[in-house]
Amino acid sequence: MQNKILEYIKEAVRLSRENMNSGDGGPFGAVIVKDGEIISSGSNKVTSKNDPTAHAEIEAIREACRILGTFNLSGCEIYSSCEPCPMCLSAIYWARLDKIYFANTKKDAAEINFDDNFIYEEISKPHDKRKIPVMQIDHDDAKKVFDEWVKKEEKIQY
Amino acid sequence: MQNKILEYIKEAVRLSRENMNSGDGGPFGAVIVKDGEIISSGSNKVTSKNDPTAHAEIEAIREACRILGTFNLSGCEIYSSCEPCPMCLSAIYWARLDKIYFANTKKDAAEINFDDNFIYEEISKPHDKRKIPVMQIDHDDAKKVFDEWVKKEEKIQY
Repeated sequence: MQNKILEYIKEAVRLSRENMNSGDGGPFGAVIVKDGEIISSGSNKVTSKNDPTAHAEIEAIREACRILGTFNLSGCEIYSSCEPCPMCLSAIYWARLDKIYFANTKKDAAEINFDDNFIYEEISKPHDKRKIPVMQIDHDDAKKVFDEWVKKEEKIQY
Repeated sequence: MQNKILEYIKEAVRLSRENMNSGDGGPFGAVIVKDGEIISSGSNKVTSKNDPTAHAEIEAIREACRILGTFNLSGCEIYSSCEPCPMCLSAIYWARLDKIYFANTKKDAAEINFDDNFIYEEISKPHDKRKIPVMQIDHDDAKKVFDEWVKKEEKIQY
């Protein structure tokens, strides 16, 4: 089992290096495994796709969902060359993945000038202490939409 | 100015209701504004696209980046019908948006059974206290890739 884990992490790291060398984006790779098989992979395409959400884990999650035809990846594990940033960690929760393995840490990422650790810190701050200003606008109609959602009979929850 | 803010929030809320009624996904909408004009919009397509990352804000960010041809949305603001979940909030940081306005809160979302608040809580916990197990695997080669990134001369940072 330990050997398999190392094998998947090595593949994620191999992807991270390949991606960096290709010039497609940052040095990050990830794979998703189901029943002992790699079903999808991703690497960082932020700069080549002009998509700030195209992190390795998000790419791998989106591909796995396409392949399996579902938005729910329970029964799957993710292996990433680096600790998922808060965006990717949250995506892993939304996708219901079973387990996360990673190699480099968010502090390693901070040392090479990626903002993962900074964003972790920002998220846990109250609104008025954050670097990006955030403001709640009272808007009764928004709440009404939520009430309508609760009453809606035909809906797919997730 | 206040009137404009309300107008953009109303558009985000209108999208949230339209999306719910169309059956495409949850009751969430968002718009991105640059220089006083709405340049992109998004609504929640998780269940219709089978993509757990297809939240309103992510959809709006990806569309704005496609339209502007950049991964950096500084100079833009986002208006969302609901407080961004940690995935979307982090994406907003990665995209360098200037400001965030929202209507419903993460507690409102929790009350209609969306996991936003739960994920906020999970992210701030140490690894060993989280619901999804997370494990760091020592892998020297991953760190070497980061060192190679630092030494790489031609690269696009973000």
